[in-house]
Amino acid sequence: MISKPAYSVFLNMFTTRADRFCTTGYSSARSISQQFDLVRKLENISAVDVVAFSDEDLQVVSKELARGDIQLASVLPDITCDPIYQHGAFTAPDPRIRRKAIEKVCRCMDFAAAHGCNSVTIWPGQDGYDYLFQSNYLEVYSMLQAGLEECASYRGDVTLHIEYKPYEPRTHSYLDSCTSVLALLQSMGKENMGVVIDFGHTLMSNRSPAEAVALCHAHGVDRLHLHLNDSYAHMDDDLIPGTTHTLYYLEFFYWLRHLGYKGFITFDQFPYREDAVEAVTEARRWLDILWDRVTRMDEEEVQAILRRRDGIAASRLMRDVLFGA
Amino acid sequence: MISKPAYSVFLNMFTTRADRFCTTGYSSARSISQQFDLVRKLENISAVDVVAFSDEDLQVVSKELARGDIQLASVLPDITCDPIYQHGAFTAPDPRIRRKAIEKVCRCMDFAAAHGCNSVTIWPGQDGYDYLFQSNYLEVYSMLQAGLEECASYRGDVTLHIEYKPYEPRTHSYLDSCTSVLALLQSMGKENMGVVIDFGHTLMSNRSPAEAVALCHAHGVDRLHLHLNDSYAHMDDDLIPGTTHTLYYLEFFYWLRHLGYKGFITFDQFPYREDAVEAVTEARRWLDILWDRVTRMDEEEVQAILRRRDGIAASRLMRDVLFGA
Amino acid sequence: MISKPAYSVFLNMFTTRADRFCTTGYSSARSISQQFDLVRKLENISAVDVVAFSDEDLQVVSKELARGDIQLASVLPDITCDPIYQHGAFTAPDPRIRRKAIEKVCRCMDFAAAHGCNSVTIWPGQDGYDYLFQSNYLEVYSMLQAGLEECASYRGDVTLHIEYKPYEPRTHSYLDSCTSVLALLQSMGKENMGVVIDFGHTLMSNRSPAEAVALCHAHGVDRLHLHLNDSYAHMDDDLIPGTTHTLYYLEFFYWLRHLGYKGFITFDQFPYREDAVEAVTEARRWLDILWDRVTRMDEEEVQAILRRRDGIAASRLMRDVLFGA
Amino acid sequence: MISKPAYSVFLNMFTTRADRFCTTGYSSARSISQQFDLVRKLENISAVDVVAFSDEDLQVVSKELARGDIQLASVLPDITCDPIYQHGAFTAPDPRIRRKAIEKVCRCMDFAAAHGCNSVTIWPGQDGYDYLFQSNYLEVYSMLQAGLEECASYRGDVTLHIEYKPYEPRTHSYLDSCTSVLALLQSMGKENMGVVIDFGHTLMSNRSPAEAVALCHAHGVDRLHLHLNDSYAHMDDDLIPGTTHTLYYLEFFYWLRHLGYKGFITFDQFPYREDAVEAVTEARRWLDILWDRVTRMDEEEVQAILRRRDGIAASRLMRDVLFGA
Repeated sequence: MISKPAYSVFLNMFTTRADRFCTTGYSSARSISQQFDLVRKLENISAVDVVAFSDEDLQVVSKELARGDIQLASVLPDITCDPIYQHGAFTAPDPRIRRKAIEKVCRCMDFAAAHGCNSVTIWPGQDGYDYLFQSNYLEVYSMLQAGLEECASYRGDVTLHIEYKPYEPRTHSYLDSCTSVLALLQSMGKENMGVVIDFGHTLMSNRSPAEAVALCHAHGVDRLHLHLNDSYAHMDDDLIPGTTHTLYYLEFFYWLRHLGYKGFITFDQFPYREDAVEAVTEARRWLDILWDRVTRMDEEEVQAILRRRDGIAASRLMRDVLFGA
Repeated sequence: MISKPAYSVFLNMFTTRADRFCTTGYSSARSISQQFDLVRKLENISAVDVVAFSDEDLQVVSKELARGDIQLASVLPDITCDPIYQHGAFTAPDPRIRRKAIEKVCRCMDFAAAHGCNSVTIWPGQDGYDYLFQSNYLEVYSMLQAGLEECASYRGDVTLHIEYKPYEPRTHSYLDSCTSVLALLQSMGKENMGVVIDFGHTLMSNRSPAEAVALCHAHGVDRLHLHLNDSYAHMDDDLIPGTTHTLYYLEFFYWLRHLGYKGFITFDQFPYREDAVEAVTEARRWLDILWDRVTRMDEEEVQAILRRRDGIAASRLMRDVLFGA
Repeated sequence: MISKPAYSVFLNMFTTRADRFCTTGYSSARSISQQFDLVRKLENISAVDVVAFSDEDLQVVSKELARGDIQLASVLPDITCDPIYQHGAFTAPDPRIRRKAIEKVCRCMDFAAAHGCNSVTIWPGQDGYDYLFQSNYLEVYSMLQAGLEECASYRGDVTLHIEYKPYEPRTHSYLDSCTSVLALLQSMGKENMGVVIDFGHTLMSNRSPAEAVALCHAHGVDRLHLHLNDSYAHMDDDLIPGTTHTLYYLEFFYWLRHLGYKGFITFDQFPYREDAVEAVTEARRWLDILWDRVTRMDEEEVQAILRRRDGIAASRLMRDVLFGA
Repeated sequence: MISKPAYSVFLNMFTTRADRFCTTGYSSARSISQQFDLVRKLENISAVDVVAFSDEDLQVVSKELARGDIQLASVLPDITCDPIYQHGAFTAPDPRIRRKAIEKVCRCMDFAAAHGCNSVTIWPGQDGYDYLFQSNYLEVYSMLQAGLEECASYRGDVTLHIEYKPYEPRTHSYLDSCTSVLALLQSMGKENMGVVIDFGHTLMSNRSPAEAVALCHAHGVDRLHLHLNDSYAHMDDDLIPGTTHTLYYLEFFYWLRHLGYKGFITFDQFPYREDAVEAVTEARRWLDILWDRVTRMDEEEVQAILRRRDGIAASRLMRDVLFGA
């Protein structure tokens, strides 16, 4: 039996969160060091995913990591939140912006490697369109390939984990789904590229996250990174994982275990109105239980059921795992 | 033939716009006076809808309105963007917050009346829930009724236009659809209450905005206010009206004309990445054309088609209106 | 503590099921008597909801009911499946069709009363539209009111339970949501009218079924009938209840218990590829457990949590109910 | 300037259409010869897409084609409607069913080639799942690859056009989107495989059909087949093309013209309640106009706009194309 993957948490979950209405933020902002201090209070979580907003931020992160009690799970270069990327990062019409995005990714690869971490998360949130006739789809697609190609070639010891999302902040993202990333990766053939499976993004694209895990494996992509949260699948609600799609989590964890996933499980919530420490603690408790339930499943029995394509058997299995036979 | 309703525009469209990722805003912020100056540059638009963020803001608005070149279409008391309302305004668990919300609405009614305007727009954006088991639906519903009742009773010469939206910023709004407002209004029986039909919110609830107009009339509610924009119906994209649901606009305008709508047509866009003056000018050009097309429709011919319930005839009618017979 | 409501099951679930592709049906058809025989095999289910396709069918139903072992929970007059209603039943352009629909409903009210049942289920599935400009929304709405008014006035001892659904078989139904029925009922003021809360239809309209229960109560409508199933919320999948929206069922049952629901819980599944007896048995097992979990919830504790509007507390509550504290 | 692609129409659109409620069909059934007679009445349409339900059917089709006035655009082997495929065709748990599906496809390839047609359309409608834990995603995916591999290898002179759809008749299809097919095709490397872009299926997956065309080209897949219809994007409504997503059609046709598409444009509607001849005639009139508008667009001007990623310019372009500058 494989052991449970280690938990990580997005560091910036511990500062305030705004939206387009409440622009001042729902709670008080905190410094990066204060954010680290809150992470240190979490039970059974000792790794962070860090959004690299600025080089100055990274220096503070570096200092905090030097204390040795927190591990770096992945670095996410901000190519979405800075308004210079509003018309795209890898696909910006201005070549200087594209250059900036690539350089930012490369600096983050260096930072990751320098801090014992081999993952950089690429979320090209602004690489999409809002209006029909707003994009030359061929041109932007080749820009996306070229930009990622250059980043991946920069150094092979850090994996670029590419994150898809159907929409938001653009009304349409170029990389909208798991298979859109898989088709892209296949066309590039770089070894140090993988996929971020964000639970909520996957629900928005109407796919079971478990199937996304399996599809990556079927296409030879085993370098995964996971963002965990929950939602009602219309927007990217980033709720406490387990609170709406409980059974999807069982299936998801089953497939992670089945395929021997060894990476991190990163909490990627957006607790607008909740205390972040409590929200992550709640999340961990849900996932502890759900993972535990999955580890108690009998592999051969499950495989036998999956082979039958039998809805009744699937229902009975889920009922048993949840409530006991 | 009735003349085209007058256009109005949300004043704050002319300052910067942020979202939960780009929290600093996609462009530069502008003062209220600068926002008014941009409105003054718009062709054929000389009214504004104003969000009352603070009393200080309203003083500036008052001074600008005193110049007499801009009319006030409606006042929208901010009971959504200020973080004190994050757990609800009319339905906040804290009675002091509920009191604040009611008082704010009443002050806005006074402000409206003092400035020759008889509409206050109520958008209870935070009155909703994010998690199952997070709300006592009965209690919050009666709080909503009680709060609106008190506001409506405060003065009868100002109409409260109630705005529905399925979700955002909450994952579920209590007033999610046109009929949720109609059911509420019927249970209250106040004359000075009406409905805001926001085009995009209506699309999100999978209803044709034209049907929403007719439904209000069928339930005896003829005090409408209109928010115009467009979207892909998953989120509240607030795009330039006409750019995605062109034919829906034809049907919408047909019903407004059919029922003799005489209020304002308010541009309620959110041009994150576009120049707001250009975005509103584009919007006005779309709507000028679409309204013109509708005025050329032969009422008796249309009514004859609608009576038949004939999909082919409906298709032919739309094709003819768009492209000529 | 109130006892669990009695289960009922749609009789026609036990014959074959077709769709627009597999028009011959996924399995073998069965006669009405054979369908009854299968119901008799079900454990703890001894009531049926019957679709009145034809008068001949009802005669057989009558004979079977005369055996006294099966109770009649509700009669659903077919005003959707017979192609004569394809352009609407209550809203058909042809007055003879509207007459036929009304008479059919009245005959079913008589049938229900004659068989110890006080519920007729009205699902006006064809009363909607497919194209913009295909309906005079005002005219059809008043036809709908007039038709239902006549039916409700026919005899006051049978309740008409009105069923909403956003779409299918039409792309848009006039009665698309719980609040669309509530607004209609309020405009009519008939005592013997109520609401069918179909779990899957409610999910399609993005509302928690629990909130639908509460909303009906808040509007003074306590005559409910329930159709239970599950879905992924895009279509009306009619899956085994509990298999996707488990936590929604907990909240739904909590509110039913809280408001003292005493009617039937009707299994309304569409097991295309599964054995119907097994599918209903599975359903019953899920719901037995979920109802049991709900009865163990401490009312005061739950009410205290609901009053707080606290996402963390809601999450903890759900986790505890599902997995134990 | 390239000439307009030739129109084709699904032959079986001219018999009756049923759904899961109206199982007897909304209108009268017609024989295959009668269906051909109706096609012959259509103006400017002289090709058909044929669903191969049975070998007997194909013999009649063959006889009708021998008259020489109707061309065969594509053959679609029925591996969805026959209930033997209800648990999957290429992915059926029973190897004999998988064998039958493959053999059926191969017979259709022979039939196509024998009748001057080089396209077989593969729509694996039952290859999906309804419940979580109902499928071994890895196993079914390799079955899908193996089955298609064998078919494609059978003869290289006929192209297999693979059709994706997010859901229906299953709640989840394995091939749910354009990129899911592209990822699959890349993993197989067969030259005689391409993609069916069904307009409505693409809307259901929230992608602009124009982008789907471009994405196929970007991945080196230029063998396309097109199914045209329209919908409200929740279900596969199969309405008259142009009646809801008018501007999407302009963008779609622009990209087809831009990339020199030379195949057929197949009408794939499902006129439940309309006369099929009228529905197709309406469709042709919409598309004639829309294609004409697109041919009048200035290529260089459009390309210049697309390069700018400018929402305002995109809006202006659409407005000009629709209504004139």
